[in-house]
Amino acid sequence: MPAFSKDEYDGRLRKVRLRMAEPGIDLLLVTEPANMNYLTGYDGWSFYVPQLVALPLDGGDPLWMGRAMDAAGARLTVWMPDDAVIGYPEAYVQARDCHPMEYIAAYLRDHGWNGKRIGVETDSYYFSPRAYDRLRAGLPGCSFIDADLLVNWVRAVKSAAEIACMRDAARLVGRVMRSAHEAIEPGRRQCDAIAAIYAAQVGGDPDFSGDVTGLCPVILTGRSAAAPHVMWSDQRFEPDQTSAIELAAARHHYHAALARTVHLGEPPPRLLETANAVNEGLDIVLATIRAGVRAADVEAAWRGVISRYGLTKESRIGYAIGLGYPPDWGEHTISLRAGEEKILEQDNTLHVMLGMWMEGWGMELSETVRVTQGGSECLTDFPREVCVKR
Amino acid sequence: MPAFSKDEYDGRLRKVRLRMAEPGIDLLLVTEPANMNYLTGYDGWSFYVPQLVALPLDGGDPLWMGRAMDAAGARLTVWMPDDAVIGYPEAYVQARDCHPMEYIAAYLRDHGWNGKRIGVETDSYYFSPRAYDRLRAGLPGCSFIDADLLVNWVRAVKSAAEIACMRDAARLVGRVMRSAHEAIEPGRRQCDAIAAIYAAQVGGDPDFSGDVTGLCPVILTGRSAAAPHVMWSDQRFEPDQTSAIELAAARHHYHAALARTVHLGEPPPRLLETANAVNEGLDIVLATIRAGVRAADVEAAWRGVISRYGLTKESRIGYAIGLGYPPDWGEHTISLRAGEEKILEQDNTLHVMLGMWMEGWGMELSETVRVTQGGSECLTDFPREVCVKR
Repeated sequence: MPAFSKDEYDGRLRKVRLRMAEPGIDLLLVTEPANMNYLTGYDGWSFYVPQLVALPLDGGDPLWMGRAMDAAGARLTVWMPDDAVIGYPEAYVQARDCHPMEYIAAYLRDHGWNGKRIGVETDSYYFSPRAYDRLRAGLPGCSFIDADLLVNWVRAVKSAAEIACMRDAARLVGRVMRSAHEAIEPGRRQCDAIAAIYAAQVGGDPDFSGDVTGLCPVILTGRSAAAPHVMWSDQRFEPDQTSAIELAAARHHYHAALARTVHLGEPPPRLLETANAVNEGLDIVLATIRAGVRAADVEAAWRGVISRYGLTKESRIGYAIGLGYPPDWGEHTISLRAGEEKILEQDNTLHVMLGMWMEGWGMELSETVRVTQGGSECLTDFPREVCVKR
Repeated sequence: MPAFSKDEYDGRLRKVRLRMAEPGIDLLLVTEPANMNYLTGYDGWSFYVPQLVALPLDGGDPLWMGRAMDAAGARLTVWMPDDAVIGYPEAYVQARDCHPMEYIAAYLRDHGWNGKRIGVETDSYYFSPRAYDRLRAGLPGCSFIDADLLVNWVRAVKSAAEIACMRDAARLVGRVMRSAHEAIEPGRRQCDAIAAIYAAQVGGDPDFSGDVTGLCPVILTGRSAAAPHVMWSDQRFEPDQTSAIELAAARHHYHAALARTVHLGEPPPRLLETANAVNEGLDIVLATIRAGVRAADVEAAWRGVISRYGLTKESRIGYAIGLGYPPDWGEHTISLRAGEEKILEQDNTLHVMLGMWMEGWGMELSETVRVTQGGSECLTDFPREVCVKR
């Protein structure tokens, strides 16, 4: 059963088809797992083999096409009837002499799509150069149109049902962050803290299950304090260490992300001073965000504050967040950074991520935020101060 | 610090360079995260943005190239000196008007690689058609050679140090499977069982941390019993349900995988009969595997046994397993199935996966196995019978 009502999916298809019509796309092939889920409800860990959703511009349900083994899972989770689920035979899986896209191209050819205009996601996860090559070879009469991020840009504005999922996720991520705070203790291993985080993420709420998150949880401590995406180890937390924590929780694969900082022992002045500046920076970011404002202006407001404290930050301070599967919870559309002309719209959802990775230490503070007509609404709710454990 | 000795990495580079020499590849660009790790030790969750390792055929260390933010993590984890780590500026991240591969191509051009023969992984994870396109556009004098699976085939034969990692993972996966067995109880939610599994996977052993596994843990119960890669939910386990469990544990990202079946209540005869046939099938698979045997012959031995019981299985019965990052722990080289001419070699490591997904129910049994000169060695060690909880 898909996570949303048929009306919700109908609305999504309508918006996507409007965008397909502009460049004249007859058939959109969607390979990004979050986009496949968005259009059909499909939910499975099968993106390690080629698969896609094919959406015709004119009428007709989308088709799910993937490994035959996974067709059963597709029939359980998509809203379309069973005959909209097409499985390719096992012999195509990781074989030397054939490719699943040959089967898929032949199917589309046999169903009248050769000669049409086909949209493809050229820079999404899980669609390889060879997959694209085999698809083109099997549909020689088609012209191919780059439709990368077409669905993502529709996703950038969330429906009420999606916001409700993100509120659930935001409620859950507070519990998860509390587990992380409790788990960080001198003598405890990083991996034990991460284990507690995973258990809280997946176990979810008494009322609903949690999902695996697009990015893995990260705790930056000690020598890895300035390396944002390093994996955990079995090193033990030590007194006088600062740990920056970035994690999320997900409900129906909709994410709320949160970053906070924990210090074991007496916090050094540089940490408190930086945290103070970043907190003031967050305040102005939240006060600047509203429908109608340029993404670049949000970053400029932030920069104005932290530069007064002599601080700089090279990386963007936020990005669109929502539906996602590994490896990412970001939606690859909006970035809050200099030069971004994008005008924020109501019900954009952003992860405002203020990671300060300094020489040999780091701190982080973030919120997951909804853009409203008059301003911004923090979906996440967790004390912003550095958590000091003496 | 990388997970292995410099000698281990030197040996890997030597073997990969031998394979590069055959088709005359001057520079191999490796984008698959497990392959990047294999050559350099790099360990980070940064594969959600374009990155690669560039390995020259003649002398010279490999280069790590990725997002500037992640260069700090690369310097912490690779064996090469700091100047072998090249970061591209933040402005290239998920931008509309530029692509990280433009920066990378320009760097390679400036360092004398234009005009050379470049190997690329055309069907690996996290290398998109646009990435390939931008790379080719930026290196117009180069010829590009499909080097997909080149490194994977070197990885197919494990070193003693790699086998040691897989033994650790095999020890851990037994603990993880025990957690799963304990967690499956009438009235308990699926997500709570999966939470216990994640905690056991990541918390690891008293002596070492566990890693996130390439595929997520899967429990197939009730309506999803015949859908191999479906995600968990908050449904509760019920009396008289059969649950098939497939999961792994990983040490330094080397996996041992294991599948078992749990039944709550009195097991139906069809389950016990199928389990009996599958157990006998596993015995003959393990007795058939040895260095020098064709992959197809292993599957034929299996088929001979189960067909006597009136059973069939369409999907392959095993594949190469070892080093992996999400979304897969399979290595995409060896498959145990009809028609596979590949001759097994000593220190190949296989996940022999006997999943029987029937009409409305399913069962699974698997082992992670090392190929030896004289036969096979089960790395995993867990009772094979269906676990009956009355």
